[in-house]
Amino acid sequence: MAVGPDTFPAMPAIAGIRLGTAHAGIRKSEADDLTVIELPPGAQVAATFTRNAFCAAPVLVAREHLARGGDIRWLVINAGNANAGTGAEGLAAARATCAALAELSGGKADQVLPFSTGVIGEPLPVAKLTAALPAALARLDAAGWEAAARAIMTTDTRPKGAAATCSVEGRPVTVAGIAKGSGMIAPNMATMLAYVGTDAHVDPAALQTLLREAVAVSFNAITVDGDTSTNDACALMATGRAGHSPLTPAHPDWGGFAAAVTRVCRELAEAIVRDGEGATKLIRIRVEQAADGEEARRVGFTVANSPLVKTACFAGDPNWGRILAAVGRAGIEGLDIGRVEIWLDEVRIVRAGGRDPDYTEATGQKVMARDEIGIRILLGRGQAGAEILTCDLSYDYVRINAEYRT
Amino acid sequence: MAVGPDTFPAMPAIAGIRLGTAHAGIRKSEADDLTVIELPPGAQVAATFTRNAFCAAPVLVAREHLARGGDIRWLVINAGNANAGTGAEGLAAARATCAALAELSGGKADQVLPFSTGVIGEPLPVAKLTAALPAALARLDAAGWEAAARAIMTTDTRPKGAAATCSVEGRPVTVAGIAKGSGMIAPNMATMLAYVGTDAHVDPAALQTLLREAVAVSFNAITVDGDTSTNDACALMATGRAGHSPLTPAHPDWGGFAAAVTRVCRELAEAIVRDGEGATKLIRIRVEQAADGEEARRVGFTVANSPLVKTACFAGDPNWGRILAAVGRAGIEGLDIGRVEIWLDEVRIVRAGGRDPDYTEATGQKVMARDEIGIRILLGRGQAGAEILTCDLSYDYVRINAEYRT
Repeated sequence: MAVGPDTFPAMPAIAGIRLGTAHAGIRKSEADDLTVIELPPGAQVAATFTRNAFCAAPVLVAREHLARGGDIRWLVINAGNANAGTGAEGLAAARATCAALAELSGGKADQVLPFSTGVIGEPLPVAKLTAALPAALARLDAAGWEAAARAIMTTDTRPKGAAATCSVEGRPVTVAGIAKGSGMIAPNMATMLAYVGTDAHVDPAALQTLLREAVAVSFNAITVDGDTSTNDACALMATGRAGHSPLTPAHPDWGGFAAAVTRVCRELAEAIVRDGEGATKLIRIRVEQAADGEEARRVGFTVANSPLVKTACFAGDPNWGRILAAVGRAGIEGLDIGRVEIWLDEVRIVRAGGRDPDYTEATGQKVMARDEIGIRILLGRGQAGAEILTCDLSYDYVRINAEYRT
Repeated sequence: MAVGPDTFPAMPAIAGIRLGTAHAGIRKSEADDLTVIELPPGAQVAATFTRNAFCAAPVLVAREHLARGGDIRWLVINAGNANAGTGAEGLAAARATCAALAELSGGKADQVLPFSTGVIGEPLPVAKLTAALPAALARLDAAGWEAAARAIMTTDTRPKGAAATCSVEGRPVTVAGIAKGSGMIAPNMATMLAYVGTDAHVDPAALQTLLREAVAVSFNAITVDGDTSTNDACALMATGRAGHSPLTPAHPDWGGFAAAVTRVCRELAEAIVRDGEGATKLIRIRVEQAADGEEARRVGFTVANSPLVKTACFAGDPNWGRILAAVGRAGIEGLDIGRVEIWLDEVRIVRAGGRDPDYTEATGQKVMARDEIGIRILLGRGQAGAEILTCDLSYDYVRINAEYRT
């Protein structure tokens, strides 16, 4: 199940980036589960990773390789095994993967960034993975985005891609990205992997800042189940092939470029929520009039992660008391409930701490029957806001997570 | 569904306390849904309430009546309607309930504490409630504990009671309590109501301190779904009829009395988790070697509220990576994962940041197949600890909460 039509977009090529996939047999399926992304010399890579203290071996190795400021040339991603909770052996496996890819393609191991997603705590079958590397390399193709979007999937029911264009110094610049993620989705970041490429020429520090800002309003503003994975990663790769001068925030075309990258990240993040495990509804929570952004996010995530709100959405039941109760327990010091308003799309349900006198069950039910439900919460405290996306909690969430390994 | 046998204990009478129930027709069932508890003149009442900012009208009124330091003589509890999110009308309804009871029994309205549990946001049908008060008063009986335990139920599948005895100055002292709660259960406090009575003679300030301490390790150490209700309340009533001198912490028999009250609270809290919505397993999470109690509780609750851990328990799947991931995202600054150990009952699954080399899937599966699963997490940081109880997340949790109103 997923919310909305399954429409993988036409993905443009990004000059300098090629993607290849192969079947390594790590995931229990006949589909490809290994992806290599090749970057041209001189490409810039920015990345953000999970803040889970138990971060996976490939996250540690990728951070290490990025810290060397090196000339990153390859990304290698396997699905089916997270290589997390695997201790020293796991680190050795991630390093062996990088070394094997470097050897096959004439680079150095620290020019490779490894990524893994799948079951936690099982040894990574390195031999299977490295045996499939030559096939993935042989299939490197600038048109490989959709195949890669499929090869990185785990419990995802559909591939996720997004693209945007903008103009820098009169030249066309393209941004394209793919992502995976369906469960264990929560801020900082989700069990999600995302790879966004562009042919723009971008200053390295500016690229990292841009990624951080784009992730804050996209991948870090979604939640499926409040669980944060050990393996989350998002990489933004800029090849510089568009042929303009380096972009920094001071460049007059920076705004348009930043907007394109942010749009791609937001579309991918929304696609992850739409494909949330067992999702039948997309829930868009907008918190307004908060004292600051942190408070707005806290209220948004408390409502978004409430199992009672999520099951009410699944049932299409305008049980607005559950939304009100979640707002009330978000821990906002000195919240004046008399100033709080809550809306379901165009219907105001709560005003002055109680049910809106004009509210009727029928109008609430009309909103709750929709595939996409907007919950708008006005706190009456200030000017800050946040938008958080989540999905409902259905029987299928339980089924998927009770059956994932067994 | 619920975990373990349904064994409502034999409830002793508490000298001076009588309980009566009646059918008011507020809850959609033929069973009694209105309870009155009568206290003797001079009884002391301590109480704790929800910290949800949207607390219900009866909570506001009960706090107000307690603050007057008054001579509380009656508690009135209705099931089926929470009288929450009901604004000024709701406050008037709670006050009207108290006034009606006072008029019928010759007391004053501020000698009555009102409590409500059920659906949020619907007007309380005061007329139905007050019409049933005479019947409840006519049935006041020192042996009414079990009937009351049934009359306060909402989605509970079984009544919950516990009792203990101790000795003060050589005289027998009895503690008896009932509770309700099944969903929207989380600390501070759950959608739970609990009423504990004793014939002990207790100093009022000491009674309130004791209740706060007992609640911290019982009702505030459980979670079903991470949601905190608008109506939670726990009252501890001491009639003083046991005939000893007033108890304070300086009294030599204080320890035994405090232990009896704490034991009753813990048994009631455990009964709530065992009857958690859709529960098929009881999960006992013990965090040890934490730097402080707050950190221990944070880790415990993060694991307890993880939908992925809960579904793995439902499936009987030793997917220990999910426990490890939850510990990792609990936000413990500077956690050294190399020092973390995780046990499933007698089986060590994680050591030095990875799977214990001696761990086998078969031993893990053996533990996960049990009705009661112990998860022990050693953080390697200090001496503090906490124990948190929760239950698994099953299809039935979704069914119950998707169908609660519809």
